[in-house]
This record gives sequence, C-alpha cells and structure tokens, in this order.
Amino acid sequence: MNKKYQVVGIGNAMVDVLSQVADSFLAANNIDKGIMQLIDTERAAELYGKMGPAEEVSGGSAANTIAGIAALGGRVAYVGKVKDDQLGAIFVHDIRAQGADFDTPLADASHPAETGRCMVLVSPDGERSLNTYLGVSEFLHPDDIDESLMAAAEWIYLEGYRFDGPESHEAFAKAINACKAAGGRVSLTLSDPFCVARHHEAFHDLIRDHVDLLFCNVHEMQAMYPATDLDASMKMAAAEVDIVVCTASEDGAYILTGGETEHAEAIPTDIIDATGAGDLFAAGFLYGLTQGYDMLTCGRMGCVAAAEVISHIGARPEVDLMTLFKERGLV
Amino acid sequence: MNKKYQVVGIGNAMVDVLSQVADSFLAANNIDKGIMQLIDTERAAELYGKMGPAEEVSGGSAANTIAGIAALGGRVAYVGKVKDDQLGAIFVHDIRAQGADFDTPLADASHPAETGRCMVLVSPDGERSLNTYLGVSEFLHPDDIDESLMAAAEWIYLEGYRFDGPESHEAFAKAINACKAAGGRVSLTLSDPFCVARHHEAFHDLIRDHVDLLFCNVHEMQAMYPATDLDASMKMAAAEVDIVVCTASEDGAYILTGGETEHAEAIPTDIIDATGAGDLFAAGFLYGLTQGYDMLTCGRMGCVAAAEVISHIGARPEVDLMTLFKERGLV
Repeated sequence: MNKKYQVVGIGNAMVDVLSQVADSFLAANNIDKGIMQLIDTERAAELYGKMGPAEEVSGGSAANTIAGIAALGGRVAYVGKVKDDQLGAIFVHDIRAQGADFDTPLADASHPAETGRCMVLVSPDGERSLNTYLGVSEFLHPDDIDESLMAAAEWIYLEGYRFDGPESHEAFAKAINACKAAGGRVSLTLSDPFCVARHHEAFHDLIRDHVDLLFCNVHEMQAMYPATDLDASMKMAAAEVDIVVCTASEDGAYILTGGETEHAEAIPTDIIDATGAGDLFAAGFLYGLTQGYDMLTCGRMGCVAAAEVISHIGARPEVDLMTLFKERGLV
Repeated sequence: MNKKYQVVGIGNAMVDVLSQVADSFLAANNIDKGIMQLIDTERAAELYGKMGPAEEVSGGSAANTIAGIAALGGRVAYVGKVKDDQLGAIFVHDIRAQGADFDTPLADASHPAETGRCMVLVSPDGERSLNTYLGVSEFLHPDDIDESLMAAAEWIYLEGYRFDGPESHEAFAKAINACKAAGGRVSLTLSDPFCVARHHEAFHDLIRDHVDLLFCNVHEMQAMYPATDLDASMKMAAAEVDIVVCTASEDGAYILTGGETEHAEAIPTDIIDATGAGDLFAAGFLYGLTQGYDMLTCGRMGCVAAAEVISHIGARPEVDLMTLFKERGLV
C-alpha cells in the first residue's frame, strides 16, 4: 500500500491550558486526579478563575498523535472542529506547521460555542487531571468527514473521546466505511476509562466489527474487558482485534497479535508532565507500523516517543524524535 | 513608606508566541537575531505562517517583571492594554493569577486591532529574536492611567518599549506626575537598543528630569550613553540618575549609586530561552529594594531570578523564586 496518507486522525481539536497545581488544589475543587472530566462553560470559567498562571499549547489527543507522526516525517492529515477565533487560529497553525494536512471547515463566528480547550492541571508528581470544555469540537458532523480523505488513508486513527457528542458515532461510521471500502485499516484509542464506561456497548460494537488495531492503557483495558487480571483482559481483547497494544506506564507496553505477546520496555525518564504520553506512544507505534517495522520495534518507538513528551510540559514533541530513534538503534 | 503597592508597572501587554527555530530561519526571513522588531499585521501573518509549532504564554516586558515580584510576595499592580478577546482573557487571567492587581479597561470588541502578541523565535543557543505586533497595547491612553493607583505606588516601573505609540509619552507623564506628587519614585527600563535609538531625546529628558532608577543592559547603555567603554557610559548615566543598574549577561550586573559601584555575579545556568532575563532581573532587584535590602543583595536577587527564567521556555518564573533566594542565603 502506498496511499497519499499513512495515518489520518479524527478527534477533539483542543487547545491545552497548562497549569501547575498542588494536590490540595485538586481536593479543594473536587477534581479527580489523573482522569479526564467534561465540564461546561460555567465550570470552565470557575476553574480558570481559581487556577494559577498558565501556558497555552495546541493539544487534543489524536491531534498530538498526528503531530508526532508528522514530526517523524510520516504522511498525515487531521480532522477536528475548531472555530474561526484566536484559539482556533493557533490550533490550525500548529497542526499545519508540524507538517499535517488539515482542512476541516471552521465553525464560523456566529457559532455560540468557542474553540475547545482542556485545562490540564499538572501535579508535582507529573500526573495530570484534565478538565475539558469541548466547545465546537463536539459538533464535528458527518459532513465534516471527507470520504476521499478517508479513502486516501492507509490507517485512520479514531479518538475514543470523540464519542462524546451528538453526531460523532455517525461521523465515525462514515469515516470507517470510506476507509475500509478503499482497503484502509482502522485504529482506535480508548482515551479514558470513564469514556469507555460512558460508551461501553458502542465501543464494543465498533471494536468487534471494524477495529484492526486497538490502543489503550491498563485502566482502559480493565474498563473495556473486565477480568481478574491484565493478562486475561488482554486475551479477551486479542480475541476480537488483530493488533492490541496496551501501555502500562513504567512497565512499558504489551503488543498482542497473531497469538504472540511482545513486551517493549519503558524508557526511564523524570516525569515532568504526563500529558500526551499515550498520544505520543501511538505516534511512535503507528510510524513504525506504516514504515514496516516489526511489532517489538514499533512498541519501542512508542516508548521512546512517550518518554520524550513526558520529560517536559506540553503534549507535543520538543526534540527531534528521529534523532532519539537513531540513538536507540531503532532506525 | 508603606503604600498599598510596592511597584506598579506600565507597559505593552502581550501574549508571547514561542517557537524554536534554526539560525537559517532567521537569515531566510531577514530577522535580526537578539533584538526586538516591530511588525505590522501583514508581516505578523507572514511570519506566523512560516514558523513552526508554537506555545503561547503571557508576556510583555514590564508584565513579566510585575509577575515576578508578585511571585515573590510583593504588592504589585500592572497597567497595559489588551482587548476583550481570547488572548486578552489569557493575559488578564495570568497576571491576576500571579497575584498582581490589573484593572486597565479592555479595548472592546469593535476595536480594529487585537490583543498584542510577540513572536519569540528561540535559536538553538537560547538567544531570542522578538517580532512584535503591538495590537491594542499601543493604544494605551492617558485616560487609562489611574492617578490614584500611581499615587499608591512606592515605585512605578516604566517600560521603554511603551514609548512606541501615539499617546504613550503623555500617559507616562501623567503617571510620573501622580506618582511623584504622592512621594513615589520612578524606575525605567530602556528595553532595547533600537528602542533607545528611536526615542533618544525623549528618553534623555525623561531620565534627567524624573528617573530615580534606570535599568538597562550593556547594549542599551551604549546606545543611551555612547562612550569609549562601558565604564565611561555607566559613569555618564550615574551622573544623571540616583541608581543605575546595568546587566551584562554572563558577567552579572553592575549597580552604581552614591559614587559606589557594586558587582553582582551571574548564576551559571544552561540557557534554554533568554526571553525575560532582563525582566526577571528587574523583578528580583525591585523586590529586594522595596524590602530594604542593600544594593549588592538586590543585584544578586536579580541575578537569581534571571537565571531561573532563562533555564526554561517562557518569560515567567516556573519555580518558587523565594526558595531559590533562601538556597542562596539572600533572605
């Protein structure tokens, strides 16, 4: 296969608002540490008023993954909804400047919501608690899915978070059909254990019927395939999906395919900000996969990319990932 | 003196757009390394289109200084013009969240310009080249100067950059008169050698007639007081101003007052991004001064604060400056 795009990602286009907080801030504001919480405009304003000084960087889970593959030189495009406002302009600039194609129509100035943003509260241990105001990103409509773009993709990469929204299931179905009809394959990230709980049946149908490659971490794996231990959960997943990739923080990642399990070791790193670890793991893995590397090497590429992004604030890579791959003898 | 505010800063309220670039990018786009260049909307759009992915942090020279003093627990306020737009909301949040009072009226939605932004292009050696779209910040009007606020300040801190604008000289004059009439004192930073060249006479009048404390670096010193060597320039300045503080990068800072010269050593640091070095030096110095420390200690506080801010991307402190002061035995 040598299509125009190696990976086309679809997800919530967000600008991250990053702020360092004490654990006491999370407790005082009833924020569950380490998970993603959807919030409304009012709560967003309340939290923003209470939190400390922040910095803004383009984010969004699948967008981070696509930016990572682009940084490695992969051929990628991204689909997600932003508004024609200042934060939207920042998002569009950053994804294009990283080398990804992006042509989703912008919501115009009359739209009542604004470009989505995610308040990322980083604790002293590097753990992050996400408070997401979806804004216009949840209004991604089937009309925003360009079937010719999906047909031009070797892989599409679907963000589980995008299941939260009125027409998202329909949009995903349109993307999957167009991709598969042209011989492409479908990958999905489960995004968050609570997201899995909100959409368990729909995710399960999607996985069984359409997904060729499933990304998740151990918490999402347990939520999706409840069992007595991780091994049992992973086997349930592997019975339904060609390639299952489960990340396990400092324990690296497990890749299950064709009855085999590979284990890629994590790269020891001081964790400054865990935001984007899973997103960049997927970037490294998908880069390797679309370049034809074996599963273990793909997993190692994922671990190297994840280690880079947790070593600094923000969820987009800051140093050249290819240089890191070379240093580790992966390419 | 025990006024409500120890320092009130007036300057260009900006959001910084930070991007890492190769030196070849500067050459290809005719950008002079290490200086501040004013650009119009068209050039801003052109550069933004060419530059790589970026992150956004609140900036503005005097605002960085005020944020730094606030982070140290000083009583501060800031005056500068932003618009009622998304970038303006970010600026206002960050300066208040750091602990500074900010009540300058926002330019409303009908204003043709937007909140100002500064494209900060960071070279591999940490040097930064600033391309500034002033936006509404240059429309700071004498009406925006609240005389009771100026009267409540032990020191006002004027940003030289703010001399670029139609009504800025008048606004500065109003601020100075209100401050001095209430027994306050006036500090000025020269900001940039080209800014000095653009306003040499006006700066000279201001310095001779009103300034009690002058901040500059060696390049600005040479532009303001041309002489055969730095010593001679500094002596010319000291003949006109009570306290002269000249920063000299890895050579630390010189403080001239009452016929004496003190030298504060720089703190050795890996330079990641020099943005804000002078701003945070001024923050440390003014904190020390308003707490009654001797000149050498004030200079050392400035050097410690400057070293912190150049050790990471962005011009606002990320670690607790007071902890650093304690580690150095300064408090």
